[in-house]
Order: sequence, then C-alpha cells, then structure tokens
Amino acid sequence: MIITLLTDFGLRDAYVGAMKGVILGVCPGARIFDISHEIPPQNVAWAAALLPSYAPFFPAGTTHVAIVDPGVGSGRRAIALETPALRIVAPDNGLITPIWRDALARHGRDALALVSLDNPRFWRDTPSATFHGRDIFAPAAAHLAAGVPVAELGSAVDEPVLLPSSNPRRKKDGTIIGRVAMVDHFGNCITNVSAGHLATLGPHASLVVKAGGATLSGVRRTYADVVEGEPLALVGSSGALELAVRNGSAAERLGLRAGDEVVIAGG
Amino acid sequence: MIITLLTDFGLRDAYVGAMKGVILGVCPGARIFDISHEIPPQNVAWAAALLPSYAPFFPAGTTHVAIVDPGVGSGRRAIALETPALRIVAPDNGLITPIWRDALARHGRDALALVSLDNPRFWRDTPSATFHGRDIFAPAAAHLAAGVPVAELGSAVDEPVLLPSSNPRRKKDGTIIGRVAMVDHFGNCITNVSAGHLATLGPHASLVVKAGGATLSGVRRTYADVVEGEPLALVGSSGALELAVRNGSAAERLGLRAGDEVVIAGG
Amino acid sequence: MIITLLTDFGLRDAYVGAMKGVILGVCPGARIFDISHEIPPQNVAWAAALLPSYAPFFPAGTTHVAIVDPGVGSGRRAIALETPALRIVAPDNGLITPIWRDALARHGRDALALVSLDNPRFWRDTPSATFHGRDIFAPAAAHLAAGVPVAELGSAVDEPVLLPSSNPRRKKDGTIIGRVAMVDHFGNCITNVSAGHLATLGPHASLVVKAGGATLSGVRRTYADVVEGEPLALVGSSGALELAVRNGSAAERLGLRAGDEVVIAGG
Repeated sequence: MIITLLTDFGLRDAYVGAMKGVILGVCPGARIFDISHEIPPQNVAWAAALLPSYAPFFPAGTTHVAIVDPGVGSGRRAIALETPALRIVAPDNGLITPIWRDALARHGRDALALVSLDNPRFWRDTPSATFHGRDIFAPAAAHLAAGVPVAELGSAVDEPVLLPSSNPRRKKDGTIIGRVAMVDHFGNCITNVSAGHLATLGPHASLVVKAGGATLSGVRRTYADVVEGEPLALVGSSGALELAVRNGSAAERLGLRAGDEVVIAGG
Repeated sequence: MIITLLTDFGLRDAYVGAMKGVILGVCPGARIFDISHEIPPQNVAWAAALLPSYAPFFPAGTTHVAIVDPGVGSGRRAIALETPALRIVAPDNGLITPIWRDALARHGRDALALVSLDNPRFWRDTPSATFHGRDIFAPAAAHLAAGVPVAELGSAVDEPVLLPSSNPRRKKDGTIIGRVAMVDHFGNCITNVSAGHLATLGPHASLVVKAGGATLSGVRRTYADVVEGEPLALVGSSGALELAVRNGSAAERLGLRAGDEVVIAGG
Repeated sequence: MIITLLTDFGLRDAYVGAMKGVILGVCPGARIFDISHEIPPQNVAWAAALLPSYAPFFPAGTTHVAIVDPGVGSGRRAIALETPALRIVAPDNGLITPIWRDALARHGRDALALVSLDNPRFWRDTPSATFHGRDIFAPAAAHLAAGVPVAELGSAVDEPVLLPSSNPRRKKDGTIIGRVAMVDHFGNCITNVSAGHLATLGPHASLVVKAGGATLSGVRRTYADVVEGEPLALVGSSGALELAVRNGSAAERLGLRAGDEVVIAGG
C-alpha cells in the first residue's frame, strides 16, 4: 500500500494536499511518500530521468504516481503500467520512457500490463479538465494500491508514447559527445554518459573530460579526491558521468546548464 | 488518526519537525500529511483561501492543523472547530473563515462545535509565548486524533473571527469586477469569481475577460484549448475563474499579482 | 519504527526519495517523517544546531537520520549513537555535537553506545562513493528501526568528532558577546546566547541588546509586545535569545547574517 508522488506542482499550493486526501479517501491504509514536487514546470524529460533514481529502490509492488502534464485536458491518454517490480500511473507523454525500456529489456513485453485510464468508474465524479492529478491519477493509484487489478482501470494499450533516446554520440576516434542531462540541488551536472560508455574508452584515470571551457584529467571516485573548490569528473550514484566541484557548484563554476555539451576522450 | 499540516513555517528550519514529534508523542499512531509550509509569511487570507481546496478531499474525521499566526503570544484565541466532516485547529484570526461559512451553510450551527483551546491540560507543559504550533496546536490536534472530544479542549465559543467576504462586485450592467486572489506555483492567477458568478452573465464562450491590459474572448475548458504561450481564461479545478498561459506563467505574461482587478463582461 | 530525515539534499532531485525506498525495503513498517532537506549545502554546524530543536520532541526510541556530508567517500567515519532517548545515524563530522554533549551530561558515558557503521552486512550491496545517504545511512537507520542492536552495526567508537563550543564570550563587566547562529524562515535571528546566560545579567526588562547598529531596550516575551514592523529581542521557543521584527524580517531590517555579533549588557 505504498504510494509515491512525483509532480511539478510545487508545495506552495494545495494541489499535492488534495491528491493525498483523494488517495486516502479511496485507500484509507495508503502510505504516501513524497519524492519531489519541484520538477521544473512542464519538464517531462526531467521527471522521466529522475524515475530510475528512486523507483527501483522501493519495495516490489509500490505504486508510483508521476505527473508532469502539459497536455492535461487535451487528447493525451492517461496510463498505468504494471511490471513485475512496480506500478506507475502517469500521463502518456513520454514520462515513463526509462521505466518502460528497462522493464521491456528485463522482463519482456508479455510480463508488462499497460492500460489507458479510460474507465470512469475509477475516476472522481465529474473530473475537472485541468487537474487530472486529483481527479484521475490519484484515484487510479489508490485503487491499484487497494488491490484493483490494473486491467480493470481501462483498455489495453500496445506501447506508451516514448521520448527520443538520450544516448550520447560517438566520433570516429571513439570520442564521446554527451550532454548535461540535469543539474542537481548541489550544482552537480549529471550527464547522459554512463559508466558503460566510459569503459569503452579506457581506464577512468586515463580519460579527459571537457565541459564549459574546462579540461579535467581523469574520472575520479568521489568529491574528496580533489581539494575544496576544485572541479572534477566522476561517476555519480546513479551510474552516470557527473561534473562536480568539491563543496561547491559545478553549474556555477563551469557555467553549465542542462543541454550543454560534454566531450570525453580516451588517453 | 489522519492529521494534516498547513503553515507558513517553511521547511528550512525544524519548526514543522518539532510539531510532528509532539503529535507522535501524544498520539503514537497519528498519520501526518504535509499540505504546505510555504504560505507567504503571516498571510492569513492566503491560508484561508487554500483550505477549501484540500480539506474536503480528506476522509471524514480528519484533523487539520492550519497555522498562520502573526498574533502568537498576544490575546488572540486558539480554537478548534468540529463539523460533521472534519476537525480543525487554528489561531482565531479569520483563518477558518471559508470552512466555517461552508459548514454553517451545509450543516447549521447546532451541528458545529467551536471551542477555545484554553484548557492547559492539553497543552505542552510550560508553553512558549512564540511557538504555539508546537506547544498548543500540535498537542490539541493529536488529542483530537486520539479521541479526546473537542469539548474537553476548552470553553465553547459562539463564532470565530471572520475575514470580510471576498465576493466580487457588480456593475449595474451586470459586469463583474473581481480580483486575483492567489497566484499559484505555475503562475496561474486564481480569482475570487466563481463559475456560479459567471453563469449569471451568459455562456462561457460569450464572455470577455479583461486583466493586466489583456482582453480574452471566451472562458475556455482547459489549457490545451489555446496554442502554447497564449493566455486564456478558464474555470480552474477549484471552481474559480483563472487566468493562465498554456505552458507558461500568466502572472509574468500579464503582469498580474494578488489583488489585481479582473473584469468580466457578458457577450 | 519512527525514522526522521534531516539532510542538505534539497527536494528537487530524488536523493531523498531513494533513501525512503531503501528504508522501506529494509524495514517495511518504517514510518518516515521529513524534518528538513533545506540545510544550506555542506553546512554541518547549521544541521547540528537544528537537531536539539526537534529530536527531543519525538517519542523515545525514534531513529534520526542527519546527513550533511562534505567528506562523503573520504576517510571520515559514518556513526550511529544510541542514548536512552534516541538513536541517530550521521557522518562523523561534528553533526551530532549538541546531541552528544546533552546526552553525556544527562545520562553519562556508560549509558551511550557509539559505533562506526563499518559492518558491510548492513550496507546496500556495492555502496557508491558519493551517496552514503542511500547506501549506508538509510539501511543503518532502517535496521535500527527494525530492531537490530546498535552494537551489531559496527565497531565501538570512544568519542565522535565534535564542533568547537559555540558559547558566547564575556567581558570583564559581564557584558555578553554572542553571535547570530542561524536566520530562520521568517528572518528571525537566533543567537548562541541562552536564557541562562541572560539570567546572569539581570531581569529581562533591564537588559540592552545591540546588533546590526540597533539598540534594543529590554528582552520581551513575544512578537506582539511591540508594534508591527518594530524590532525586538526576545527568548525564542528554543530557549535562545532571538532578534525579531513583528510581522517582518529582522535579518533584512537590521542587516544581520549568521556569524554577526550581538552584544547584551545589564541595566
């Protein structure tokens, strides 16, 4: 009966509070855990990228709610996905892309159930056109947590809307052209380059990382491998290449923002 | 045993954390749900306006704590209200105005219990003069959640302090002069004009809304009814007229702030 | 099974969410309460100062997680402390200083258990070098909440790293030279001068407090003792001398920041 919440609703209003109330009305025993409500408004890709950094750590059977929904009230579908590991309800706008791709690779299509939340029996009465978080997603999650099989929530769907792949590019000499995917609270710049990509170029100590005008020699193990205030490249806790400054902000120090290019060359 | 928390305490300090500890000390099984701690400091009207957008969605019997308390330590009363639907503890400064008016209209005065939290048996020992959230409201809510009848918490009160009505004005020709009541996280400008007010002027499509120098034709159904970046008027999820920009901020685009005038004319 | 979380991780990313998932994986019944995730990045002293303002209010046996960890991945120890009142897991960088000193004074060293979290059996498999919150502290807290004795988590430690005392200085005439320890959400400036320190100088009404160019006569009882917009000195809810402005920000009005000097003289 664990339900997590990820939205771009912020916490200054009562949108998240209304969802919590609706969930508890449907599933009185639900245990609700806030992940983040500070996704940059309407940034679907950002929310999609965050999902793999928390969802896999929750117990099997957890129901995740993820809402960044610029198309609310339009024709976009609302969907629920069930995998052997988790359930997630979200607008069908690419948000579940990494969860879907990972589940497909791990379990195969037959192990996954994907439905459109089109059965009004599981909506709030008279849903609004602008707040499906409260009127469609919250009740859907609560019904799932309360034991309603996902297939009852609506008609089967073949495949969700998917975001384009965010893999880095390669030059002929093997050099990797990646980009900053996300800047975190500390100003660490997390890239779309994985430890697996780096492995193809040689040992971490031999790599050269260029970003924001800086050239960093070697990929380090942790922030404390350089002196305070110095920039470094390392593989962060999500398994991706990250640019950081010990006890500082790499985004500020190197002038980096989401989307900026990061180039990694072998030794 | 559900308790919700709405305050202007922010989440940078441990004020909210201390309240959670006190609640659990009194009522170990309490289930505590954060609504918002980002009410603009000392803005009683803002908190009052938020209450109806989440409290009615919680299961009957939920105890709501709502604290925006510029008069803490002065002579202002602390109160608890019980209605057939909910319980709420708050400073007696107008904060519960919409909850009180709605409960009065719905259930009648005899169905409501209103008390002053003046029985020190239900306070923390030696309450401070500056943090009644921790020392008076949190224990009161926890005792209510634990089953103490509201009448035991203190002496009966006839009527709470009420904020002045926030209804829009009318011109002779029926034109409605409302105002922006609140700007939400997305920059949507929520007005004090309800769908009921609009209905007196004619069908939504025929209305003309003027605000911040812009003239908007028609009241739409949802954000996606206009192209990206365009402003629109619509009836939002709380049932009030709202000015919005699809995937943008109406507050920024139209230069609107809380208190600004919004004029709605029939077709 | 109550676990509280205090970090400098912010709530924009999923770091806190990942910790919640890990905790629930180890201790499915854990009840998790957010205190704050907005500690200024890497500010160990700030987090240390907050702990006594919430931890003592939680029921005995609560497990507190407190993470501000500029040395993550370096040689710094991770520790767990058990006192008769609480358990806490934290990096060994001074963060638990006030909790340790208070427990030592109250219960004596023999009543306290302090260990290094060096038993990998209670870590997540293959912990990262940069996110011990998820990989070491969260599982440790969850195991403690689930009943694992603290001694099993690792080897005994004599004494934690301690921050230097933050007591105010004294001039020969008794005048107290304190400083602003923390500025809260409202702009109240909380000092390192306690009510006990003030008592040595005379009755509150006779004291003179100088800070930020202002001279304030008398230490008041509550904000409402002065008119709106006026600065005042008072003993706040944590028992420390505080500079405030009724319905305003003392930090802005008096130009004060953490570290600034506050001088208190007798009458």
